[in-house]
Amino acid sequence: MKKLEDYITTIPDFPKPGILFRDITSVLQDKEGLRLAVDAMQEKLSGVDFDVIAAPESRGFIFGMPIAYNKNKAFVPIRKKGKLPRETVSASYALEYGTAEIELHKDALQPGDRVVIIDDLIATGGTTEAMIKLVEELGAKVVKIVFLVELTDLGGRKLLSGYDIDSILTYEGE
Amino acid sequence: MKKLEDYITTIPDFPKPGILFRDITSVLQDKEGLRLAVDAMQEKLSGVDFDVIAAPESRGFIFGMPIAYNKNKAFVPIRKKGKLPRETVSASYALEYGTAEIELHKDALQPGDRVVIIDDLIATGGTTEAMIKLVEELGAKVVKIVFLVELTDLGGRKLLSGYDIDSILTYEGE
Repeated sequence: MKKLEDYITTIPDFPKPGILFRDITSVLQDKEGLRLAVDAMQEKLSGVDFDVIAAPESRGFIFGMPIAYNKNKAFVPIRKKGKLPRETVSASYALEYGTAEIELHKDALQPGDRVVIIDDLIATGGTTEAMIKLVEELGAKVVKIVFLVELTDLGGRKLLSGYDIDSILTYEGE
Repeated sequence: MKKLEDYITTIPDFPKPGILFRDITSVLQDKEGLRLAVDAMQEKLSGVDFDVIAAPESRGFIFGMPIAYNKNKAFVPIRKKGKLPRETVSASYALEYGTAEIELHKDALQPGDRVVIIDDLIATGGTTEAMIKLVEELGAKVVKIVFLVELTDLGGRKLLSGYDIDSILTYEGE
């Protein structure tokens, strides 16, 4: 039987030279891979008391929604600037060149809400740090963060120290 | 008890003057709304024999993935140009000004695969028409298309005539 890691495709030099891209779409395009991935991630929430799943556009949506449905929780999308139609809070994070901005609806979380953040992959952790900032700005609390893939050499876990982080598959290097 | 339509927020003049934007994020940010929406969409697949869910970036991912998980099927993302790392087929569709291009991995579907397309909303149907083109280019067959919201005055259903289309909530006008 194939294991979860067997479904990950590694693509050299994407999106640019020197990057080893860990592709999770090859996991999803097999029904067994899809089930293994979602089940492994939501198992990390066993015993975790929470109200809401928050996940970023667009690969975070892929894993955040089935877990929200299965756990009977709400789902809150975090999107790139200008995509959410109602009043938002926003946070910037550094890219290799310049910065990007993400937003969260102001009424999406209530003070005291216990939030789980879900995403496909952690590298430097910059996007996740910005998501935490948005959640906390609304008075809610990040109780757990789960990634399918962690690139361990890029410092994400150190940047997010103090938060409860789990990942399913880890890779060294980029 | 609130009904599904009660969770939809209508925002005037977003993203530009004259548009009534039907916001589905307010459905998701309530756990009852989320469950009603996913359940209503997947009920439309009752008795439909299919292999794969295909859905477009990024709101299509929100509904496509929980349905794929629940129905124990594969999930194939259709993304904006340049986002998918492996070899793709691509199709263009008209925007108000200019065109946009979407892509699908070449190995994501096999000839003869029975595909269900899921998206949050149908307006003119242009994106869906391009998705159908990609699926058929790989020799697969679109057996059903399900939307959460249909804007009935914009001609989408007419453009896609000949395909089996269902929507859960309908609104006249833009």
